[in-house]
Amino acid sequence: MIKVASGKSTTPKAKLLDEFNASILFDKELYMQDIEGSIAHVKMLEKQKIISLEAKEKIIYGLHVIQSEIENGEYIFDIADEDIHMSIERRLSDIIGDDAKRVHTARSRNDQVALDFRMYVLKSNNEIIKLLVDLQRVLIAIASKHTKTLLPGMTHLQHAQPINFAYHMLAYLCMFKRDIERFEDSHKRNNISPIGCAALAGSPYPTNREYEAELLGFDSVSVNCLDTVSDRDFALEILFNISTMMMHVSRFCEEIVLWSSSEFGFVELSDEYSTSSSIMPQKKNPDVPELLRGKTGRVNGNLIALLTVLKGLPLAYNKDMQEDKEGVFDSVKTAKISIKILAEVLKSMKINKENMLKATKKGHLSATDLADYLTLNCEYTFRDAYRLTGEVVSYAEEINKDISELTLKELHKFEPSIKESIINTLQPQFSMNARNSQGGTSTCSTLTQLKYFERWISKRLVD
Amino acid sequence: MIKVASGKSTTPKAKLLDEFNASILFDKELYMQDIEGSIAHVKMLEKQKIISLEAKEKIIYGLHVIQSEIENGEYIFDIADEDIHMSIERRLSDIIGDDAKRVHTARSRNDQVALDFRMYVLKSNNEIIKLLVDLQRVLIAIASKHTKTLLPGMTHLQHAQPINFAYHMLAYLCMFKRDIERFEDSHKRNNISPIGCAALAGSPYPTNREYEAELLGFDSVSVNCLDTVSDRDFALEILFNISTMMMHVSRFCEEIVLWSSSEFGFVELSDEYSTSSSIMPQKKNPDVPELLRGKTGRVNGNLIALLTVLKGLPLAYNKDMQEDKEGVFDSVKTAKISIKILAEVLKSMKINKENMLKATKKGHLSATDLADYLTLNCEYTFRDAYRLTGEVVSYAEEINKDISELTLKELHKFEPSIKESIINTLQPQFSMNARNSQGGTSTCSTLTQLKYFERWISKRLVD
Amino acid sequence: MIKVASGKSTTPKAKLLDEFNASILFDKELYMQDIEGSIAHVKMLEKQKIISLEAKEKIIYGLHVIQSEIENGEYIFDIADEDIHMSIERRLSDIIGDDAKRVHTARSRNDQVALDFRMYVLKSNNEIIKLLVDLQRVLIAIASKHTKTLLPGMTHLQHAQPINFAYHMLAYLCMFKRDIERFEDSHKRNNISPIGCAALAGSPYPTNREYEAELLGFDSVSVNCLDTVSDRDFALEILFNISTMMMHVSRFCEEIVLWSSSEFGFVELSDEYSTSSSIMPQKKNPDVPELLRGKTGRVNGNLIALLTVLKGLPLAYNKDMQEDKEGVFDSVKTAKISIKILAEVLKSMKINKENMLKATKKGHLSATDLADYLTLNCEYTFRDAYRLTGEVVSYAEEINKDISELTLKELHKFEPSIKESIINTLQPQFSMNARNSQGGTSTCSTLTQLKYFERWISKRLVD
Amino acid sequence: MIKVASGKSTTPKAKLLDEFNASILFDKELYMQDIEGSIAHVKMLEKQKIISLEAKEKIIYGLHVIQSEIENGEYIFDIADEDIHMSIERRLSDIIGDDAKRVHTARSRNDQVALDFRMYVLKSNNEIIKLLVDLQRVLIAIASKHTKTLLPGMTHLQHAQPINFAYHMLAYLCMFKRDIERFEDSHKRNNISPIGCAALAGSPYPTNREYEAELLGFDSVSVNCLDTVSDRDFALEILFNISTMMMHVSRFCEEIVLWSSSEFGFVELSDEYSTSSSIMPQKKNPDVPELLRGKTGRVNGNLIALLTVLKGLPLAYNKDMQEDKEGVFDSVKTAKISIKILAEVLKSMKINKENMLKATKKGHLSATDLADYLTLNCEYTFRDAYRLTGEVVSYAEEINKDISELTLKELHKFEPSIKESIINTLQPQFSMNARNSQGGTSTCSTLTQLKYFERWISKRLVD
Repeated sequence: MIKVASGKSTTPKAKLLDEFNASILFDKELYMQDIEGSIAHVKMLEKQKIISLEAKEKIIYGLHVIQSEIENGEYIFDIADEDIHMSIERRLSDIIGDDAKRVHTARSRNDQVALDFRMYVLKSNNEIIKLLVDLQRVLIAIASKHTKTLLPGMTHLQHAQPINFAYHMLAYLCMFKRDIERFEDSHKRNNISPIGCAALAGSPYPTNREYEAELLGFDSVSVNCLDTVSDRDFALEILFNISTMMMHVSRFCEEIVLWSSSEFGFVELSDEYSTSSSIMPQKKNPDVPELLRGKTGRVNGNLIALLTVLKGLPLAYNKDMQEDKEGVFDSVKTAKISIKILAEVLKSMKINKENMLKATKKGHLSATDLADYLTLNCEYTFRDAYRLTGEVVSYAEEINKDISELTLKELHKFEPSIKESIINTLQPQFSMNARNSQGGTSTCSTLTQLKYFERWISKRLVD
Repeated sequence: MIKVASGKSTTPKAKLLDEFNASILFDKELYMQDIEGSIAHVKMLEKQKIISLEAKEKIIYGLHVIQSEIENGEYIFDIADEDIHMSIERRLSDIIGDDAKRVHTARSRNDQVALDFRMYVLKSNNEIIKLLVDLQRVLIAIASKHTKTLLPGMTHLQHAQPINFAYHMLAYLCMFKRDIERFEDSHKRNNISPIGCAALAGSPYPTNREYEAELLGFDSVSVNCLDTVSDRDFALEILFNISTMMMHVSRFCEEIVLWSSSEFGFVELSDEYSTSSSIMPQKKNPDVPELLRGKTGRVNGNLIALLTVLKGLPLAYNKDMQEDKEGVFDSVKTAKISIKILAEVLKSMKINKENMLKATKKGHLSATDLADYLTLNCEYTFRDAYRLTGEVVSYAEEINKDISELTLKELHKFEPSIKESIINTLQPQFSMNARNSQGGTSTCSTLTQLKYFERWISKRLVD
Repeated sequence: MIKVASGKSTTPKAKLLDEFNASILFDKELYMQDIEGSIAHVKMLEKQKIISLEAKEKIIYGLHVIQSEIENGEYIFDIADEDIHMSIERRLSDIIGDDAKRVHTARSRNDQVALDFRMYVLKSNNEIIKLLVDLQRVLIAIASKHTKTLLPGMTHLQHAQPINFAYHMLAYLCMFKRDIERFEDSHKRNNISPIGCAALAGSPYPTNREYEAELLGFDSVSVNCLDTVSDRDFALEILFNISTMMMHVSRFCEEIVLWSSSEFGFVELSDEYSTSSSIMPQKKNPDVPELLRGKTGRVNGNLIALLTVLKGLPLAYNKDMQEDKEGVFDSVKTAKISIKILAEVLKSMKINKENMLKATKKGHLSATDLADYLTLNCEYTFRDAYRLTGEVVSYAEEINKDISELTLKELHKFEPSIKESIINTLQPQFSMNARNSQGGTSTCSTLTQLKYFERWISKRLVD
Repeated sequence: MIKVASGKSTTPKAKLLDEFNASILFDKELYMQDIEGSIAHVKMLEKQKIISLEAKEKIIYGLHVIQSEIENGEYIFDIADEDIHMSIERRLSDIIGDDAKRVHTARSRNDQVALDFRMYVLKSNNEIIKLLVDLQRVLIAIASKHTKTLLPGMTHLQHAQPINFAYHMLAYLCMFKRDIERFEDSHKRNNISPIGCAALAGSPYPTNREYEAELLGFDSVSVNCLDTVSDRDFALEILFNISTMMMHVSRFCEEIVLWSSSEFGFVELSDEYSTSSSIMPQKKNPDVPELLRGKTGRVNGNLIALLTVLKGLPLAYNKDMQEDKEGVFDSVKTAKISIKILAEVLKSMKINKENMLKATKKGHLSATDLADYLTLNCEYTFRDAYRLTGEVVSYAEEINKDISELTLKELHKFEPSIKESIINTLQPQFSMNARNSQGGTSTCSTLTQLKYFERWISKRLVD
């Protein structure tokens, strides 16, 4: 097995150095992109009469052999080959002989790396979008069943106003929608072909970059080769988009962990997605949402890592940029498994409507509704109504009731003109449905939001 | 001066606490957004018959008074007011009395903050885009003069192939183009009105959020209020877009620092944008590009800061989110001044064509051209041509010449069939122009790229 | 007012540039260090006969005048002076005339910056240590009252085993102890004098760096001047130590927020350290602990910012390093106010022993104790005991009891040989005290830990 | 193969979940710590009469079998075992039967993880220290040969004053010394035994934590078990210490990359530690120092990742904390190989004294020396001397000379009283040696610094 690029590892330190320098142990992930890129490249070379038809066909044959070797697990990734590009080119020589050398005509490793990595990132954008749409479908299915399921809406982890559970799920539908849009925008912005840029200055051969771009499914051809071999914006974008998406996941999982606690008791995770203790049979730990929440660390780390690597690098390619891939691979893998797992957690999670409902009876959630009632029906100014409501709340506290549990008689102590209808007005259900403005929590408004997402998804990727 | 929200600072610790809690010292930056938002809000309230025409007009009058007080420096930002929203509302009461209370009908501080901050970020996106377009114009002007100015293209900070200086500038034009596109996409994605979401659940009043959105120039109305008051994606996006942009700036400035060194001598900064030493009269330090390069630290820090703040926060608003603004203000300010300053550095920078040209005569930049010549004209295989070229390079090294300086006689020692035309072929100018593929460095291709950018910019914002 | 260093701001762009370049708006924080450093420096110069006694005395006089001008608010910090060092030197000239020029003999701005900033960081280390010790005293005072106050110890936010509240506070005492040790170690490691290093190569004057170090309270003199003017490790260390400390604070505050929720109800914040809503009179938001938790973002951001700035800078001083200060100032300020505020929150926080106790009756916290009882007293293997305990737990769940609430009769259904003593064994109090190993939660072990900290603190800084 | 902890993977989603949840694929790195910890634990249990002598010996025998299975590559790490602790315990059951269950008496996975990971980190601290000392030896060896090798000392990448190469190397010796001290301090601060803390509350068994600590080589026993199972400060510290150390490496490598450029030509990397291009035979890319510089990204990423994971976690153990290990393993591995590789790069790097010397003749490095001469010998004030020097520099520039190359005749045009000795004074060698203050660059001072390091190292670890 010969070494192509740095073929100098004859001294005793060589092994350590190979281990340090080589990227093949991780960039083998790009084998398919490398093969596809080379096939498109030789097709172009032949079309432009730069290589012969025969050479093209031999090369394509050889690349297909390599692909099947890799997919069958027969291929040897030798650290001495340094990277996947050299590895495949060397193996191609083994298989088809000297014509293998022609594949590298009018390109260099710099644009080859740029191509393979970009294609991987573009594909990953699409895969993540698809998984996010699937997750949204799960959320829609859950939400559809809970447009009337009351729970306390919170700010500062304090009970604020009653909302319904579908409405809460819709908040996450909105977040994942923005995530999807970011991945889509990034895909569109970066769907530009780098191949043919060669080392940094373009090529003296009569290449046809438009044709290559078309073969590989790119929308257009990059404008300036020096920029193209230096550009890793597409990698930064996917890292950032994953970080933001995982931040959303971390917020969701924080809530699931809270809701699973015995203090809240709003949901119960399925046995699969929680873990018992080997000592304490009573425990049911929300391991999976905790771990999902913890994954924010690594994805943020990967983002800052690449920003740090690129800082202050002169043009064009510098070896520092070899550090671009592992973090992206890790974030993409984390994103994909996390979305899938979160969908499963949600699908199998039991929602304790009774406990949620009980919680809406704590914290005087309808205090604002009482003040509004006084203003509208008893000729109070809001200021006076607010003050009187404060007194009612204090009274309710003293006798250990929520204001929604007060009797008409009790309320009459404060204001005799209050009518019977107040009893209904102070119920969480009523309070929730009162908030009927656009985007509000009323069941009616919630259903409108659900319909919006059904339409929105129907325009997205099909399974 | 009374305290509206937390009005409890009567104990001895109150001052420390106010200092800790208050955001007014930085969120006063949002005064204009706050006033505009309130004006739109009362216009809507009046249109919907929620407040009277008279109340609306008094409020708008009062807000205009406040605006001019602030702009004239007469306004007192009192830490006891906690934040800009409370400050303005309190002052409004001073000016117009009880009607001031009506401005807060059907909204809460949660959506007010969300509105003001989003409007600030959207405006900043536009301002940054405009500055980047101005910077691109400077780059185009420079590039237009240097499509034939040779310098060594580098990879790994080693001479690789000759390119022209316009081509190098075009690489940065491409980077700033992507930056602009990211700011534009983010603007578009987030141009959605949050106003009217109230605390987290919407409002029971018959509001008209569409009308408010229209008045404030938003494209649409947010879908779910719970998400809207929790959403800071727009802030993360501008932070990331600034980090990526400043990474590009750091690469550019690294090059300017290198080019300004006595070793390179490619450019000379104007006296304004460099600093002398108080001890050493000979020194001319590239302080400005160094400081620009150093600004990457703070903008990356601001990005990671907000990602950290938002991690694991349950819905909806939590006070942690008060930490969202200072970093964004700092990054926006940094971005804006950095782009302006970079443009000035470039405009006033002297380009030493002679030194650049001299450098292209070092490092045998046309070695590939010799190998290509042998392949095309002397019936060598590329492998043999490559080997022979290696020998020629070694010979040139020995006699302290660059291969572009060899005579025909010297070259004939290696291959007698070489023709006189080789002398021209090995000149950097020739080598540069040979790379004529799409996006390549030839003067012809460079001119095409320049035209592309002239057209692209003409479609952008007008001054 | 004349400009000393870059005195070139005569062109129209000068103002923008000054704003960009100048550090005086933030480095004026270092005025005291700058004055102290200069006084020590001229004392040394005089001792070494480099300047005259008269010059020394005039300079010291002038510096004292400047100090009092600054402290009385009469001093003008002019952006045209660029930085605090130039500002003071220029003002010194105004006051004492030409002798002012002698203060800069045998030093340069590079070592002056290094000195001032290092002295600031060393002082801040000490201030933070002192505040942390104060906070520990608050924790000890609270813990002393609660060595028998039961609450559920949690893992995964699930009830695990009963512990006492003092024991929980002691966990934070341990964290803040490690924080203190880190600040102490950093202080010791960096208490080395940089003054006299000049630009980067030392000075040709017969200086006495030992004497200067002694005057300024340093332990020793730096070894190599090139390193000394480039070294910002001391700044990174305080940033990291603050980040770790604030991470501890964020964990504590997360717990306080949880404990303040109506679901937990373990503690009640004083009105001062929580905020009500202007709409909902029932709300009491834990704003202060939330904001403390949110401060992790900015301190982590400041850490990553400086690591990013320093990455890849060649020796010795580069202007990028001007970006070292603002982040440190911000983190130090954040650390100091956060510790103070946290101490106040804790001091004024009401601990609801009843709610905590009630919570220990939920979740079968003594399940392990039952299994242990069966093993030790009824000749069960642990495996069989564990299985039987599982059955008892299920039975208790069915009848809505905690296992600590079961009667002997109920337990006899499962194992008739169980004795009356089991009733006591299953009480949380008993279970807590059973964990009596070193570092365990028993009241006895907790008291030992408390004593350990009282001793430890008594060896620390005195008020 | 049975599943111990979560043994529930019977449903179809189980595989995905196992993949997500399991840590065994990375925490197998801790197998040796796990075995050592278990051996110490059973020794203690037997000493305290908690288990029998026979059980202890069987367990130790079984653990040794497992150790040799792992080291011979015969051991199967099954993802179904979830983590290394469960894996070893299950395998122990296979080998020795039921006594295997006794190993887990009076401990839990929480303290077991804390123990294994802490032991790994402590060991890694020591390994990194040893490698850094080796690197320092290489630096001392190089420095010893170059105490008179002149090069231009730089600030802002501009020539400032002449220094010697040993002096430059000594700056890095200082940085790595601080790094070593940080690793040492961290080791000392964290060398505290966590074993015996059990889940979070200590154990009801009569354990002897002191004895265990002694067996495992810890200095002391942790104070509070709740803190101990939550504490990851030791992991943060090693991450930060590695980040700071790699920042130093990045600065060194930036310089090596610059020095290797054809513009500088100060050093030449050996063929082993640089890479040629497959197209351009003339190129010699400094791949290794570039990649070392790029490694700062990943180690900073790992640091921010763990800070993010730990933010806001309530006590005690949460599954998020499983994310603590991979980043530490990666940073430790990166640190170790980077130090080794850097040492090899330096050992094999050729230092071009001639080019360095030539560079000291550029940039009027001795301008300050001329001014000093005029002040001391010709009765100029420094101000007048400085001005005249400025004129001399301008003259030298005009005639394309460095001021060190001017003749006495030329100097007499400016000041006739200048004596012949000036010629010597203006030589870089003289200028370098003039800076003889403590820590200065003179050969004499440099030799003192070298001796300081030889002594310092002799007190460190022995090979």
